Amino acid sequence: MQSRDVLEKVKSGELSIDEALAFFKKRSFEEMEFAKPDTQRELRTGFAEVVFCQGKPDEYLVSIYKKMIEETGEVFGTRASEQQYELVKKEIPGITYDPVSKILKYEETGKIRTGNIVVCTAGTADIPVAEEAACTAEFFGSNVNRIFDVGVAGIHRLFSKMDSIQKAYCVVAVAGMEGALASVISGMVSVPVVAVPTSVGYGASFGGLSALLTMINSCANGIATVNIDNGFGAGYIATQINRLACGTER
Amino acid sequence: MQSRDVLEKVKSGELSIDEALAFFKKRSFEEMEFAKPDTQRELRTGFAEVVFCQGKPDEYLVSIYKKMIEETGEVFGTRASEQQYELVKKEIPGITYDPVSKILKYEETGKIRTGNIVVCTAGTADIPVAEEAACTAEFFGSNVNRIFDVGVAGIHRLFSKMDSIQKAYCVVAVAGMEGALASVISGMVSVPVVAVPTSVGYGASFGGLSALLTMINSCANGIATVNIDNGFGAGYIATQINRLACGTER
Amino acid sequence: MQSRDVLEKVKSGELSIDEALAFFKKRSFEEMEFAKPDTQRELRTGFAEVVFCQGKPDEYLVSIYKKMIEETGEVFGTRASEQQYELVKKEIPGITYDPVSKILKYEETGKIRTGNIVVCTAGTADIPVAEEAACTAEFFGSNVNRIFDVGVAGIHRLFSKMDSIQKAYCVVAVAGMEGALASVISGMVSVPVVAVPTSVGYGASFGGLSALLTMINSCANGIATVNIDNGFGAGYIATQINRLACGTER
Amino acid sequence: MQSRDVLEKVKSGELSIDEALAFFKKRSFEEMEFAKPDTQRELRTGFAEVVFCQGKPDEYLVSIYKKMIEETGEVFGTRASEQQYELVKKEIPGITYDPVSKILKYEETGKIRTGNIVVCTAGTADIPVAEEAACTAEFFGSNVNRIFDVGVAGIHRLFSKMDSIQKAYCVVAVAGMEGALASVISGMVSVPVVAVPTSVGYGASFGGLSALLTMINSCANGIATVNIDNGFGAGYIATQINRLACGTER
Amino acid sequence: MQSRDVLEKVKSGELSIDEALAFFKKRSFEEMEFAKPDTQRELRTGFAEVVFCQGKPDEYLVSIYKKMIEETGEVFGTRASEQQYELVKKEIPGITYDPVSKILKYEETGKIRTGNIVVCTAGTADIPVAEEAACTAEFFGSNVNRIFDVGVAGIHRLFSKMDSIQKAYCVVAVAGMEGALASVISGMVSVPVVAVPTSVGYGASFGGLSALLTMINSCANGIATVNIDNGFGAGYIATQINRLACGTER
Amino acid sequence: MQSRDVLEKVKSGELSIDEALAFFKKRSFEEMEFAKPDTQRELRTGFAEVVFCQGKPDEYLVSIYKKMIEETGEVFGTRASEQQYELVKKEIPGITYDPVSKILKYEETGKIRTGNIVVCTAGTADIPVAEEAACTAEFFGSNVNRIFDVGVAGIHRLFSKMDSIQKAYCVVAVAGMEGALASVISGMVSVPVVAVPTSVGYGASFGGLSALLTMINSCANGIATVNIDNGFGAGYIATQINRLACGTER
Amino acid sequence: MQSRDVLEKVKSGELSIDEALAFFKKRSFEEMEFAKPDTQRELRTGFAEVVFCQGKPDEYLVSIYKKMIEETGEVFGTRASEQQYELVKKEIPGITYDPVSKILKYEETGKIRTGNIVVCTAGTADIPVAEEAACTAEFFGSNVNRIFDVGVAGIHRLFSKMDSIQKAYCVVAVAGMEGALASVISGMVSVPVVAVPTSVGYGASFGGLSALLTMINSCANGIATVNIDNGFGAGYIATQINRLACGTER
Amino acid sequence: MQSRDVLEKVKSGELSIDEALAFFKKRSFEEMEFAKPDTQRELRTGFAEVVFCQGKPDEYLVSIYKKMIEETGEVFGTRASEQQYELVKKEIPGITYDPVSKILKYEETGKIRTGNIVVCTAGTADIPVAEEAACTAEFFGSNVNRIFDVGVAGIHRLFSKMDSIQKAYCVVAVAGMEGALASVISGMVSVPVVAVPTSVGYGASFGGLSALLTMINSCANGIATVNIDNGFGAGYIATQINRLACGTER
Repeated sequence: MQSRDVLEKVKSGELSIDEALAFFKKRSFEEMEFAKPDTQRELRTGFAEVVFCQGKPDEYLVSIYKKMIEETGEVFGTRASEQQYELVKKEIPGITYDPVSKILKYEETGKIRTGNIVVCTAGTADIPVAEEAACTAEFFGSNVNRIFDVGVAGIHRLFSKMDSIQKAYCVVAVAGMEGALASVISGMVSVPVVAVPTSVGYGASFGGLSALLTMINSCANGIATVNIDNGFGAGYIATQINRLACGTER
Repeated sequence: MQSRDVLEKVKSGELSIDEALAFFKKRSFEEMEFAKPDTQRELRTGFAEVVFCQGKPDEYLVSIYKKMIEETGEVFGTRASEQQYELVKKEIPGITYDPVSKILKYEETGKIRTGNIVVCTAGTADIPVAEEAACTAEFFGSNVNRIFDVGVAGIHRLFSKMDSIQKAYCVVAVAGMEGALASVISGMVSVPVVAVPTSVGYGASFGGLSALLTMINSCANGIATVNIDNGFGAGYIATQINRLACGTER
Repeated sequence: MQSRDVLEKVKSGELSIDEALAFFKKRSFEEMEFAKPDTQRELRTGFAEVVFCQGKPDEYLVSIYKKMIEETGEVFGTRASEQQYELVKKEIPGITYDPVSKILKYEETGKIRTGNIVVCTAGTADIPVAEEAACTAEFFGSNVNRIFDVGVAGIHRLFSKMDSIQKAYCVVAVAGMEGALASVISGMVSVPVVAVPTSVGYGASFGGLSALLTMINSCANGIATVNIDNGFGAGYIATQINRLACGTER
Repeated sequence: MQSRDVLEKVKSGELSIDEALAFFKKRSFEEMEFAKPDTQRELRTGFAEVVFCQGKPDEYLVSIYKKMIEETGEVFGTRASEQQYELVKKEIPGITYDPVSKILKYEETGKIRTGNIVVCTAGTADIPVAEEAACTAEFFGSNVNRIFDVGVAGIHRLFSKMDSIQKAYCVVAVAGMEGALASVISGMVSVPVVAVPTSVGYGASFGGLSALLTMINSCANGIATVNIDNGFGAGYIATQINRLACGTER
Repeated sequence: MQSRDVLEKVKSGELSIDEALAFFKKRSFEEMEFAKPDTQRELRTGFAEVVFCQGKPDEYLVSIYKKMIEETGEVFGTRASEQQYELVKKEIPGITYDPVSKILKYEETGKIRTGNIVVCTAGTADIPVAEEAACTAEFFGSNVNRIFDVGVAGIHRLFSKMDSIQKAYCVVAVAGMEGALASVISGMVSVPVVAVPTSVGYGASFGGLSALLTMINSCANGIATVNIDNGFGAGYIATQINRLACGTER
Repeated sequence: MQSRDVLEKVKSGELSIDEALAFFKKRSFEEMEFAKPDTQRELRTGFAEVVFCQGKPDEYLVSIYKKMIEETGEVFGTRASEQQYELVKKEIPGITYDPVSKILKYEETGKIRTGNIVVCTAGTADIPVAEEAACTAEFFGSNVNRIFDVGVAGIHRLFSKMDSIQKAYCVVAVAGMEGALASVISGMVSVPVVAVPTSVGYGASFGGLSALLTMINSCANGIATVNIDNGFGAGYIATQINRLACGTER
Repeated sequence: MQSRDVLEKVKSGELSIDEALAFFKKRSFEEMEFAKPDTQRELRTGFAEVVFCQGKPDEYLVSIYKKMIEETGEVFGTRASEQQYELVKKEIPGITYDPVSKILKYEETGKIRTGNIVVCTAGTADIPVAEEAACTAEFFGSNVNRIFDVGVAGIHRLFSKMDSIQKAYCVVAVAGMEGALASVISGMVSVPVVAVPTSVGYGASFGGLSALLTMINSCANGIATVNIDNGFGAGYIATQINRLACGTER
Repeated sequence: MQSRDVLEKVKSGELSIDEALAFFKKRSFEEMEFAKPDTQRELRTGFAEVVFCQGKPDEYLVSIYKKMIEETGEVFGTRASEQQYELVKKEIPGITYDPVSKILKYEETGKIRTGNIVVCTAGTADIPVAEEAACTAEFFGSNVNRIFDVGVAGIHRLFSKMDSIQKAYCVVAVAGMEGALASVISGMVSVPVVAVPTSVGYGASFGGLSALLTMINSCANGIATVNIDNGFGAGYIATQINRLACGTER
């Protein structure tokens, strides 16, 4: 429906003014004192808004969690601390916290998962970032297969899992240090590889810059990269791809 | 079929030694003097090997082009110069060259395209990179919708095209300077945005680093980034996503 | 009055030697043991000197605050800690402290504000920097309109406020991560946009460098940028512009 | 006028559909094959669109210049080469070119200039960037006072011009190498200083990065910075400020 | 005396073997378990070895302090903590500690100072680095004139001290943030300016990198730069210059 | 033995299926919940897998240590903290810890060492990294000669040890700050110099980047560089070289 | 023989003065107008001095080549241009030039090569750097096995050559772009891997910085890295290792 | 004489108004169209102004050269090209040009030189920068001793010249690549070392950044650093030191 049609219909009375207003307003949000939660984001992008807990003042965090459960029945927060968990639990007893991924969430039961995303890590120290990716993808409805500690220093470990990896609709490759894992995987699969550099490393790894540059400069094709330690972002885009592959885009 | 099965079958005679060898060899290539063209790459990844023309010595370039046409009936090369076109044309008269995307290719006729990829640019100077992405996606079987010059300095131009953009299975956002285009788009679509920073800019753009950092640090979700000016890489991964969405993965 | 005139008048007796000395001395300061407070700065630039509290030794801080109130009746300090507030309060009971902006000030009552500065943030985490800008502008006599959490990931929130934004004489755009907010705003207003990158972000945001580069490289016009997290500097220059627009330059 | 009002008036017939469409469309542009010239930019921002000539293909450049003169009677382009001048002159004989600022323009006669912008440079090598700023400001209606070669290595030259500098509504400080000029000036004036780092320098100046960092980190207040060598951007924002000061905002 | 001469004299008996050995050995040191204190450094360079206290294990620090007093009657250490002072004081009651410069030393009484070094700072936060420079120069026999808080944001303060500055044999200019002080001073004096960037600043000062680049790229002549926060290094080289000027090189 | 041979022998019964499987599997690892210890690494590379203790969760660390002793009779861990030592000691009383090198190991008695590796440091602050290198080399069977505190500021100390240095099969040069030690040594020996930049330094040393660049850019030949503070990596490769020189490669 | 012994013997007449002088002089060079060729370098390090041709003025180059052949019968120069070859050939007809490695040399016939160095490249564009390494190693007496175009994007090509690679005493891994090749190889061999980053790549490869950081941060052990494009340096250190392994150190 | 005295004397008639004006004006310059030559710089700093020829437009260059000879009888320009020499020679036949240092000058005959500056280089490629330093120092009246090609890869060459080096009042150390020369020298002399990093190098030397960081981070004392390739700056400050040592400061 084009703008002219809307207006024609308003003139003719086919459309009420409120319906037309909704059309032009299109997207909206809820005005709060300190924030503008994008409550209709799910309609627009297919994903509910997510809370980045790190650094949020206590009172803000609790009221946001309460409001989001109230409105959508669920809430999903990343980078939450143990202390934030204790705090929120007092108000929302059913909340759950995973100390590895640092995800603090309240999730409906009986949700169905589809498709197949593989999340790989180069080492064990990359697991927290990988779990953030995996849990994000699962919350948004994807099946996830975790394959950890398959870095290139002992590449036979990776090859022993190649059959599983080749079954995915999307592979998330999580690696710090020199980050070579993504290049090796993407040379062997036909689906997109979402590369996540991590800040694991020391010396000239410069907080993950080394792995980021490696992934951006990959000689292999079919790789795209997200920010350092951004497991959430990788789980999100992997879910978008998985949904497209399953025909469950929305 | 697992390795043990193969061996059981060899023992029992169900499988010939040559069949078994092929199983273990799995992947292969052709040994040349100066290179090892990965002629079975299409079987493995769903994409034929592509030629990066820039800097290739003349005799290498011509012989590679001839061999690839011989073996697959097609050849697709990026970053080719006018001079390289003239050179190859002498040997392969049917070769075609596009001076904007710098793609030098020989393509079968009657190929079918599926799905829907949108390629956007912020400015007109980003078009060469965008065309490399678009032509790559088309060569590998995707429908492409080009929407150019919709940068955020005049954001109404972008919004006027939003309906088209929202119909894509994947959006490729190509931008130099501050590279904000990708963030704005990915806040409005439900599908993955492949961000391509370009080296367009001056001063503190540092050859595209500024746009790269913008895209990697995007506050919006559903973005993953490829290398600066890497239109080919973006067209490749967009095609992978498009194929998954169309169920034509391979 | 030119130098020659001054000297002519000294010779003729029209001007006393002390008046002439004042002319040549022009600008001055007060010599203290550890610092040279620029007590005549208000005459020269239209702004009283401001105290950067962070890292100041306790005894220095208290004596500077006391001296400035004594001389000008007011004092305005940035980046003060809770502890510094407690310390100064003992000596100056009327002092006020805002834990968000971290501003510690003693302000005359009944001051008049003029004009219209809009201060926007991309997210809620950018609010402390924005409040530093807003409070600075207010202290120096500007009306300020705060519009927070209107980042480009949900750009409809920004557009819903565009009417207010377009009424400003100057817009301060505060954003971390990829910092795209300033570009989008400046494409839609006819007044200067002062861009403030913040250190909000993680991974490849490199303490605000990413947002800084974005703002410096903006494809839109009418943007100039201050240092990372420098809310004070933005509020200062916005006030200069606001004063010029109101004809209250000094 | 709010959206609801527009719709009420459409319903009642007070507003034609076309008037309402115009309201909602708000901003527009002209669709060309290779670009979307933002022809209504002057209405929106108070400045006509400007052509960045560098790197534009010949045929594009000429057709853009012709179209813009056709529509607005004027055209203003930056970073034009001698060759581009020769090319455009064939089609538009009245075009003028300044080899220092590299500005290629067609300007109406009898335009009135208002206000007072001072453009300073540290050295003679910074003059091309300064001229780009000055000519931009003049084209858009500002009076400009040029004060060149007053860098801090011989600071008495700067002080001899301080009276003129202090009369400006806005000062543009253009400097390469260590870029200290902006700090010194802004300590002495009550109006905004727009700092322009230049790529003049060698060794560790890293193409202007050194001057950029100096200006961003200035210990003085009332400075905001634009991109390296971005004289146009400085002239643009200085004009915005000058217009506000003169009450000729639009 | 050349090597051949030495050998001729050994042969002839003019020189004892031990004297000849000393000739060839030339320079020496004392072997300890964990270090090789360069006890003859004063003979070679005119300066006794100095202790960098920061990070030294407690037992090492005490034994080095004791050994050096034993051998030379003095000891001079930089970057000492309050705790290290308490520790050393137990063994060496006469030791003195300055909490601003963080210098922990035992110095002979009645030492004579010569010449004239001026140490300037841009702000009060630069004073600790400046004091390290000043105390170093004094320990090694230079007269020092401290002129603090004369940064370019209020440049009249600097000019009011210019007479004193112009009397120095060497000026040490200590500044953080944008570090412009060194350039301004060196344009006004005929003697070397040793520039010391400090880590004072925030945002894009990157721990002093901004000030370092400013000083290295200075448009003024007669500046050379030492490491960020390296007050000791500046005091050392200023002393070398001061000694040369006084004819007291050694 | 080629693949075909293996298969021929399986067919003929000369080789059991399990033997053949082992051939194709070639390399292997042990699947654990959180990691894939590469237990056959010694067979493949001649070095048992080493534990990077830093950041390992307590329960993981203890179980890994126990499993490795169980399987190989030894375990060698780097970057262990005092606390980790206390923890592991409770389960494995015979474990030993060196607070300088931070190595936590259980080593068989009576191991033989061969060859000659020299480990040099520029200063005493570089000793922890050097000890990590030396202890690694000793654990893997190399004789090590430690020569510490021979930096270029007092180069006679280095020359006094040159005879010892020239006897090595490989020299490890450990230096922070400007890292010049490696260049000087490699100009004087005929064997490889493994350069280890350290994070010792301040200001513009940028956490070891300065020393790393120095070593990578060395004008001398026969230098190769490992990561900043990577004593382990240097000790490892020095052992590889030492083994080759002794004919004890494996 | 210690210094004292030498002197004792001079005294006793056992040693002539000239012999003693030679002892103390130890190492020497030849004084020329513009250079100090290190003609005794072969005695000291086991390698004759090599000429870095790039940028050498014509007359210097020719006279150096002539002098070195005169003195040692051989000369070996790197980074020579076609033009330099033509120039030198006029004076030294027997000189040979390889346009791939850019090596310009005069070599004795019948030299024997020992040992086994493998030189691998990731792509064909890395071959010039690899050839510089290989030719250097061959000139200094090593057998070299070239294995090119085995990058990780098609890792089966690398594995098909693993048997050859595992036979080397030292592997040189040459790679640009993301440089992952070195990590993969060093996980599979027991000998040192000398990693050579190349400037092959584009965008965020930053002239080889990306590959350099990858190699420095490798998660695998037994890697040390030389400068970007420094094939010569890699060939040199590989030869040192090969000599040690063959017992032909000198 | 203080300002008050001047004024008292004006009042009493002791001082004419013009004399007083001169006092307050103090420093001056000559206003030209495109520049403000600092013609009294010699009075202020002891050095006449120098022309940075690189990039100067032809007509400017010639008129500046003519004006400076006219006023001071001499002119000294750096970074002049062969073409600029030809150009200037037409107008000023007595001009001389040195293609190595790229200095274009007209110098009075019979000037006296004093003192002793040593200028060292690491390699022959550093000579142009060293010559710029040496010629600058000579033009301003210093004796210079050139010692070239004494880099640390063959450190015996440096030691053979140590006697000469130790006789200097100031040493200029010029080095590219890893720039270790300055550290080694300053450990052996008692006078200041002015370090000049050069852009000589390749790969990770990043245009001289590597050498700059080395020199700034030197573990030795008595080093201060100028910009990359800034031979002029080094010669200038070395002359300042040399003059102080000779008592010929001005």
